[in-house]
Amino acid sequence: MKVSELGEFQLIDLLAEIVNRSRGRDSTSWQRVIIGIGDDAAVWSVDKPTQLATVDCLIQNVHFSLDTISWEDLGWKAIAVNLSDIAAMGGTPEFALVSLALPDCTEVESVATLYREMVELAQQFDVALVGGDVSRASLLTITVTVLGSAQNGKLLTRSSAIPGEKIAVTGCLGGAAAGLEMLAGGLQFDPEATACLRRRFLSPVPRMSEGRLLVAEGVKTAIDISDGLIADLNQICKASQVGASIEAEQVPVEPAVRANFGDRSTELALAGGEDYELLFTASPEVVNKVKRIASCLVTVIGEITAEKGIRVLDRHGNPLHLARTGWEHFVR
Amino acid sequence: MKVSELGEFQLIDLLAEIVNRSRGRDSTSWQRVIIGIGDDAAVWSVDKPTQLATVDCLIQNVHFSLDTISWEDLGWKAIAVNLSDIAAMGGTPEFALVSLALPDCTEVESVATLYREMVELAQQFDVALVGGDVSRASLLTITVTVLGSAQNGKLLTRSSAIPGEKIAVTGCLGGAAAGLEMLAGGLQFDPEATACLRRRFLSPVPRMSEGRLLVAEGVKTAIDISDGLIADLNQICKASQVGASIEAEQVPVEPAVRANFGDRSTELALAGGEDYELLFTASPEVVNKVKRIASCLVTVIGEITAEKGIRVLDRHGNPLHLARTGWEHFVR
Repeated sequence: MKVSELGEFQLIDLLAEIVNRSRGRDSTSWQRVIIGIGDDAAVWSVDKPTQLATVDCLIQNVHFSLDTISWEDLGWKAIAVNLSDIAAMGGTPEFALVSLALPDCTEVESVATLYREMVELAQQFDVALVGGDVSRASLLTITVTVLGSAQNGKLLTRSSAIPGEKIAVTGCLGGAAAGLEMLAGGLQFDPEATACLRRRFLSPVPRMSEGRLLVAEGVKTAIDISDGLIADLNQICKASQVGASIEAEQVPVEPAVRANFGDRSTELALAGGEDYELLFTASPEVVNKVKRIASCLVTVIGEITAEKGIRVLDRHGNPLHLARTGWEHFVR
Repeated sequence: MKVSELGEFQLIDLLAEIVNRSRGRDSTSWQRVIIGIGDDAAVWSVDKPTQLATVDCLIQNVHFSLDTISWEDLGWKAIAVNLSDIAAMGGTPEFALVSLALPDCTEVESVATLYREMVELAQQFDVALVGGDVSRASLLTITVTVLGSAQNGKLLTRSSAIPGEKIAVTGCLGGAAAGLEMLAGGLQFDPEATACLRRRFLSPVPRMSEGRLLVAEGVKTAIDISDGLIADLNQICKASQVGASIEAEQVPVEPAVRANFGDRSTELALAGGEDYELLFTASPEVVNKVKRIASCLVTVIGEITAEKGIRVLDRHGNPLHLARTGWEHFVR
C-alpha cells in the first residue's frame, strides 16, 4: 500500500504505534515524557539544567540515494548523525523529533521499516521519539532534531582549542567515503572488506560513550567528523582562532580502505567525511590518559598551532597538497 | 550572488551574523543561551521544569509556491506556524532551530531576507534562534523546531475534551484559504479586502497570549487551526474519544471572505485551514469569562457530545454535508 492510499492521519497513527510499542519500561527518557506523538507539541519534564539541541536533515539524491541505501539503513543513519552531534558536545541524548517528507508513491511498509530502525537505534541510546510531522514532497527528506543534556554543564565545543595541544581522533577514517564509492560504483572487494565498508558508510555508530569520556577527562574541544577530517578540523581552527599541523602518516586509515584503495587511502581518510568519529584536542597528558582508558583506538595525528591555517605534512615533513578537503554544500 | 557561489560555510557565517545582530540585550531567552549557531549543537540553561517541543516544515510546491509568497512572508510563516503549535499548548516559546534546504541557484539575498524575517518574528516573541543546518536540495524546504516551556506545568492538550463542554474559537476563519485562492487565481477585490486576505494567508499571527490566557483560566483542551476547523476538531474528538456538534451559522467568517466568496464562505471557514486561530473546549462559565477578558473575538460554535462523530448543522438544525473537511497530506 502507498502512503497516498493510507493518508496522512492514518500514517501518523501507524508511526505512533511503532514508537509506542518500542517504548522501554526502564527508559529514563520515556519516564519523563508527559505528551508524546499526537498533540500540537511534545512535552517532557526537565531534570538537568543544561539543554542541548541539534538538527540535521538527510535529503534524497543529496545525502543519499535509494539505489545504495535501504530504508532500514536510512532510519539508522538519520538518527545516528544527530546522536553524533550530541556525542561531539560530550552530552547525553534524550528526546528526538522527526520531520518526514515523503513522495506520494512511497510504500507504507518502507516508512514503517524506516521508523522501526530509527526507534531501534534511539532505544539503544535511551532516546524517546516524542514527536514530529509528516508531509508530502517530491523527494524523501528526513529531518531529525535531537535534544539532550550536559552532565554538570560540562561541554566539548569547537572554540576552545589552544596552541600546543595535541590533535587526536577516535577509530579509523576513510571507511564511509570508501563505502560510498564501493556502493555507487559497484566495486567488488572480498566479503570482509565489503561488509566493513558497507557498515562504515550505511550504519555509523555514534561515539556517545567516548564523547562523555572526553568531557569527564577534562577535554574541552571536539567535533564529529561529518564533512571530512580537514574540513572539520578547519571548523575547530576557525572557531578557536588557531591553526593546525597534521602528520598524514599518523592518520589512522580503515584497514579495508588501505587494502583496496591504495594511493587514494590517505585522501579518503583526510577528506572523505561521514566517518562520525570524534576529533578532539587536549594536552599530551590528557590525550595519553584518554588513549589508555578509551575502549576504542585513539590516535594523535598532529598539533594545534598559533599560526593560522592547516598544514598537512608527509613522512618527510613536506607539505602535502590535497585536491579537496571535504564536503561542502553548494560547492562542487 | 547565488548560494552556489558563496558556499555552505560562508552562508552559515552570514546567517549567524543576521541572527547575532538581532540578539536582543533584554531578551530572557538569549540570556540563557550558552552556545548558539556555530557548534555541533546549541546549548542553553533550563529554568522551568516542563519543556515543549514542536517541529513543522514548509516545502516548496506543497506548502507554498514562490509565485505567491515572498521570501519575507515565507520567513514569517515558517516561524509563525511553529509558534502557533506552542500557543495551542498554552506554552511560551523560547528557542528555535532552523533546517534549511536550498536549490543551488537561490540568491544569497533571498536567504538573508528569509532569515531577517524569521529573526524579526522570533524576536517579537522573545525566541532565540540558536541553531540549525543548511543543505543543498532541488526544492526549498524550511524545517523549524521550536522549544518552549509550560507555566507551572499547565497545558492545553487535544485529549481532555468532555461531553457538554462548549466549543469556541478565537478570531475569524476562512481568511487564509480565501487569501490563497485570491493569490493563486489572481482574483481582484477591493484594496482593503485584498490586504486583509493577503495578511491572513501570508503572515498569520500566532495566538500566543490567548493560549496562555486559556491555560490561566483553566481551559484544558485546545488545538490550532492549521488543517481546517472540522479536521482539527476531529483531532480533538479522536484524542478525547468524544463527538461534536457545530452550528455552521455561528462560525465566525472573516468579513472579507463573506463579502467576496458568497456561498463558499462557510466552506472556507469550516475546511479552509491555515487560519492559525485557536479552537478550544471548556465549560460555559469558563468560555464566558474568556470571552470577557480576551483581547480578540471569541465565539462559541458548538458543543462536545458523548456521541462520536462531528455533526455540522445549518440554521434549521439540519445536517450539512461538506464536500471536504480540511487538508490532509497524501489525500487529494
